Amino acid sequence: MAYTAEIIGVGTEILLGNICNTDAQDVSQALSALGINVYFHTVVGDNPQRLRQAVEIARSRADIIITTGGLGPTYDDLTKQTLAEVFGKPLVFHEEEAKRIRRYFKERLNNMEMTDNNLQQAWLPEGCVVLENSCGTAPGCAFESGGKHVIMLPGPPRECRAMLKTGAIPYLAALSDSQLYTHNIHVFGMGESSVEARLRDLMMEMTNPTLAPYAKDGEVLLRLTAKARSQEEAEAMMAPALEKVRAVLGDYIYGIDTGSLENTVLSHLREQKKTVAVAESCTGGLLSKRLTDLPGSSAAFLGGVTAYATRTKVSVLGVSEDVLKNNPVASRAVAEAMARRARALFGADFGIGITGVAGPDPDEDGTAPGTVFVALSAGDKLFCREPLHFTDRARVREFAASTALDMLRRYLTGRPV
Amino acid sequence: MAYTAEIIGVGTEILLGNICNTDAQDVSQALSALGINVYFHTVVGDNPQRLRQAVEIARSRADIIITTGGLGPTYDDLTKQTLAEVFGKPLVFHEEEAKRIRRYFKERLNNMEMTDNNLQQAWLPEGCVVLENSCGTAPGCAFESGGKHVIMLPGPPRECRAMLKTGAIPYLAALSDSQLYTHNIHVFGMGESSVEARLRDLMMEMTNPTLAPYAKDGEVLLRLTAKARSQEEAEAMMAPALEKVRAVLGDYIYGIDTGSLENTVLSHLREQKKTVAVAESCTGGLLSKRLTDLPGSSAAFLGGVTAYATRTKVSVLGVSEDVLKNNPVASRAVAEAMARRARALFGADFGIGITGVAGPDPDEDGTAPGTVFVALSAGDKLFCREPLHFTDRARVREFAASTALDMLRRYLTGRPV
Repeated sequence: MAYTAEIIGVGTEILLGNICNTDAQDVSQALSALGINVYFHTVVGDNPQRLRQAVEIARSRADIIITTGGLGPTYDDLTKQTLAEVFGKPLVFHEEEAKRIRRYFKERLNNMEMTDNNLQQAWLPEGCVVLENSCGTAPGCAFESGGKHVIMLPGPPRECRAMLKTGAIPYLAALSDSQLYTHNIHVFGMGESSVEARLRDLMMEMTNPTLAPYAKDGEVLLRLTAKARSQEEAEAMMAPALEKVRAVLGDYIYGIDTGSLENTVLSHLREQKKTVAVAESCTGGLLSKRLTDLPGSSAAFLGGVTAYATRTKVSVLGVSEDVLKNNPVASRAVAEAMARRARALFGADFGIGITGVAGPDPDEDGTAPGTVFVALSAGDKLFCREPLHFTDRARVREFAASTALDMLRRYLTGRPV
Repeated sequence: MAYTAEIIGVGTEILLGNICNTDAQDVSQALSALGINVYFHTVVGDNPQRLRQAVEIARSRADIIITTGGLGPTYDDLTKQTLAEVFGKPLVFHEEEAKRIRRYFKERLNNMEMTDNNLQQAWLPEGCVVLENSCGTAPGCAFESGGKHVIMLPGPPRECRAMLKTGAIPYLAALSDSQLYTHNIHVFGMGESSVEARLRDLMMEMTNPTLAPYAKDGEVLLRLTAKARSQEEAEAMMAPALEKVRAVLGDYIYGIDTGSLENTVLSHLREQKKTVAVAESCTGGLLSKRLTDLPGSSAAFLGGVTAYATRTKVSVLGVSEDVLKNNPVASRAVAEAMARRARALFGADFGIGITGVAGPDPDEDGTAPGTVFVALSAGDKLFCREPLHFTDRARVREFAASTALDMLRRYLTGRPV
């Protein structure tokens, strides 16, 4: 039996757009992994009438209600009172919790003055399971009433995440008999609508496992999800679907559960004990940045040069004057020279060179914005590709960097570059 | 008369916790600036019944309903059909939009195959105002029905933000007889709670104009907003508040309406006809990337070296062996040497050097993660700062790059670095 859940975020700062509702994302991920269907997110402000209305609506359409926020010591922290009223549970003073809150101020806030309103946090619904807060003062709680389960978590993201892990997830895991298992199929080089057109029939006929496409940053993520009682059962269910997707998408799949393109490439490089260096121009440091976003990249990434001003391609990177004299800056020849020079300068196994026009204006040679050449120096070979022309500056840069990573991925896995 | 609004996010990926609902945050900020009260956020999946239910509820409690997501070409993009049904508006094929979508595939996606499902995006509610999508294929729309205003925006954040700006905000601004005028006061180097503590009294007493703080990426944005019938009236209202904020925050203000730190710095450099080059290590290309995010950066930014592997600081960047022998890699001496070498190598007026440990592990010298030194070589001076230690890898990198930019900003504007 699949439970349904609704997550209610309590906090005016969310409605003002001051912060993004990351608590809902964290709770959703946790529920998803538990095989609990989240059908609604709701956010209300620190307003008792609207919170009450939201809770009444949630009670009518969900088995599990999880609230985040509104558990603190100030006058606008109203979650417990409201939920207690709706479910007819009196609030009861928990002496143990009051002691813990006093101790928190003494030991962890260095004897900071504990104003009386903090004791408000020790009032909890009668008979509830108290959920300890390891990173803050406000305890959460969980209770069942009339077939509904209610869990109240604190608003501050770090506190919410911690209490999810130690309190909410164990409470909920006990309610469910099956789990969800997922494989992420990462696709590069084919657009969302093409992927969907090729897989639409397959996706529509699948009920368990399911296959869903997500487009993001010039890539497509296909999420394959199975609901089963064990990992083995799930894998057996997902294997045929995986085969079908591979048969349709082939080399466009850059990895399964390998994370981003950069993560995938770094894994291959580390596995093969190889290194890479980059020479960038229009991508301006973006490729280096993406590779170094990941801890442990230093094993494989040696560094890069952003030769932004044209002459620095000669003076800093060491591209020969002749190449620049005889070719437009945004050209195959220059990209290939840059890739070779990056490799030589840093002593790397692979070199990547990217040159082009990010836009919105044409460059000094009059080359149109969106024109990019990406080269890879590998072994005694040179590969060069001209990615799809985009017109948005940020997209031109991101897609050029992704193309470079995909070329290296293909080379490292023995596929046509 | 203050309108109330509800934002409905449509997308199963939000309910699965795959992404955070940043669209709701962007729309909320926009509505807040327009003086429209947001009382509810709702998120539903790609499910027509539950979307319909959410829309019915929203219709009962809000004047304005803004949806995000579900406008794309795939079979689970159902926002328009559902909203059209609820409000009794037939969907009509918009020939102009179909043409624009075909043209988009031809020109901006380089003749990528346009599968038929893309034409679904050209069906829009009869009589609606079509909102152009400058960054994607799906147009949005706005219409009024029975006293309610409905606006449909695309899900992908970049597309949503652009359409908010060019389509939704003008549509909503027209509902009001006065306009909102804004000044963005950008603050770096002081945390949100400190800024708020210093300005709390001022902020609480202001009703028009209003002053609101937003914390983001280690910076604070103070948005000063006046509701007035003309620009002159608005400026007169905002001038005294601006003075008060300046008196309180002084040099921590890096710009007013100057955009990001990188934009601010590039403007000053271009104005003064000066150039900068950078040498990065733990920031791994991020500083170069931020500078080159902006069109026209080539007038001031010559380039950079990411000397990620320690030895490349010597072999590529030209830092002397001795400096590295006699100091930890993450040290003032190395940062200063890197700043000098970047400047010399690229022939720039200014050089920036950043060295440190992004984490989560300590470096080869055992230096703790979060330790960073940022140096600026300017004229015959060398400045070096050690920014606040963070523990999150991404935050360490971003804050180091921002510190470098702020140091250069201070130098360029004659303030203490």
